[in-house]
Amino acid sequence: MKNNSDVKVIGFDADDTLWHNEAFFLEAQERFWVLMEDFLPQHTTAKELMKTEIQNIDLYGYGIKAFILSMVETAIRISEGTITTKVIEQIIGYGKDMLAKPVELIDDVEDVLSALKGRYRLVVVTKGDLLDQQRKLEKSGIENFFHHIEIVSEKNEAGYRKLIQHLDVQPGEFAMIGNSLKSDVLPVLGIGGYGIHVPYHTTWEHEHVDIQITDPNFVELERIRDLLPYFPGGKQD
Amino acid sequence: MKNNSDVKVIGFDADDTLWHNEAFFLEAQERFWVLMEDFLPQHTTAKELMKTEIQNIDLYGYGIKAFILSMVETAIRISEGTITTKVIEQIIGYGKDMLAKPVELIDDVEDVLSALKGRYRLVVVTKGDLLDQQRKLEKSGIENFFHHIEIVSEKNEAGYRKLIQHLDVQPGEFAMIGNSLKSDVLPVLGIGGYGIHVPYHTTWEHEHVDIQITDPNFVELERIRDLLPYFPGGKQD
Repeated sequence: MKNNSDVKVIGFDADDTLWHNEAFFLEAQERFWVLMEDFLPQHTTAKELMKTEIQNIDLYGYGIKAFILSMVETAIRISEGTITTKVIEQIIGYGKDMLAKPVELIDDVEDVLSALKGRYRLVVVTKGDLLDQQRKLEKSGIENFFHHIEIVSEKNEAGYRKLIQHLDVQPGEFAMIGNSLKSDVLPVLGIGGYGIHVPYHTTWEHEHVDIQITDPNFVELERIRDLLPYFPGGKQD
Repeated sequence: MKNNSDVKVIGFDADDTLWHNEAFFLEAQERFWVLMEDFLPQHTTAKELMKTEIQNIDLYGYGIKAFILSMVETAIRISEGTITTKVIEQIIGYGKDMLAKPVELIDDVEDVLSALKGRYRLVVVTKGDLLDQQRKLEKSGIENFFHHIEIVSEKNEAGYRKLIQHLDVQPGEFAMIGNSLKSDVLPVLGIGGYGIHVPYHTTWEHEHVDIQITDPNFVELERIRDLLPYFPGGKQD
C-alpha cells in the first residue's frame, strides 16, 4: 500500500478484527457437534449445519440468533425429528451463553486505536445484529476511540458506496481494516478505497476467497499493530 | 405543536409508522396460541409468551428472530417438554413466513413523503434487525424518499442524543414521527426535539405508557396525512 496520505476515515470491522468472535462460534459449534453424536459423526453434523446456515442466510442474516435457529433446525432434521426438547433447550442455552459472554479484545487493539485517534475519524463498520454489536462495543472499553458505528446491510460494493456517501468522503479518503478479504477488503478496493487485511487465525468457511491481490491500495498484515507504520505521524492532542 | 420552523430533519419510525408490522406479529401469535391449545388456554399462552419475551429482551433485542426463539422456548416450557419437534418446526416456519412477507405500506405514506422530500432531510430511525429493516425498505418502494436509515440500539434519550449528534443538527431542528409514545415521542421531547405521535390501531402491550403530554413540541395525529399542515410549503424541486 502506497500513497495513502489522503485517508481521512478509517473503518474497522468489529468481530475478529477488534475482538474475538469466531472462536466463540467454533466453541458453540463443537458443543453442538458433540451433542449430535448419537445421530451423526461430528464432521457430518458440521456439514449439515453449514448447509442450513447458507440456506437461511437470506432470511436470517448473520449473528448469534440466526446461528441458534439454524442449530435447532439442523438438530431436528438430522435426528429425523427424534431429538428431545431437553436437547433443544441445551442448544438455545449455547446461544444464550454466547450472547452473555464478555468481550475479549484482540492483542494491541487499544494501543493502535489510541495512536490513530485524533488524526483520523475512526468508525466501526459491521453487518451484524446492532444490539449485539453495540453491547460488545460498550463492554469492550474502546467505545470512546470511535466516532460512531456504521451498520451496513451487506459488505459489498453497493454497501460501501452508501457508507462513503454517508461519511461524506471520497473513496480515496477511506481505508477499511478487517479480517475478511471478501467482506472488508475486496469491495473497498473495488470502489477505489484502501483495503487492509489482518487475517484472524481461523477463517469461516463461507468467507473464504482464493485470490491474488495486486491492487496498490491493498496490504496484508500479520497483526493489527503492523498498521501503524502505514499511518505515521504524532498524535494531534 | 407550534413554532417548528427550525426543523431540518424529520425522522420516521419504520414498523407500524411507514408499513404494517404488528399485525403480522399478532397473526403469528394467534397461530401460536392455537397451536398450544393442547396445553393451555389461549390467553394463558399469551401471558407466558409475553413473559418469555420480556425475560429475553436484554439478550435477544427486538425483531422476528428474537420472537421465534421466545416462541420455541415458551412452547417447551408450557408443554413441560412434551411438545413434538414437528410443532417446533411449525413455530420456526411461522417466523420464516413473517420474514418472507411482502411489505404493506400504511395509507398515504407515499404522498406524505413525496410532499416533504426536498424540503427536509428524511431519515428512517429504527431499532430492529438491520437486515430485516433494510429488506423491508427496499421492498417497500419508498427507499428513494429517504436520505438514509439510522439504526439506534435503544430509542431512549441517550440513543436520540447520539442520533442528533450524528445527524449534525440541534435538538430543535429534529422532529420524530412514530406510533410509539415511549420509543418515538417521549425521549425526543425529553432532549428538546419535536415528537409527533401517530398511533397504530393496536399497540404492543410492552410499549404502553399512560401519560398526559403538555409539551408544546408535541402533537398527536390520527393519520400520517395530518402531518402535512404542520410542515407546509411547496416542494423545492
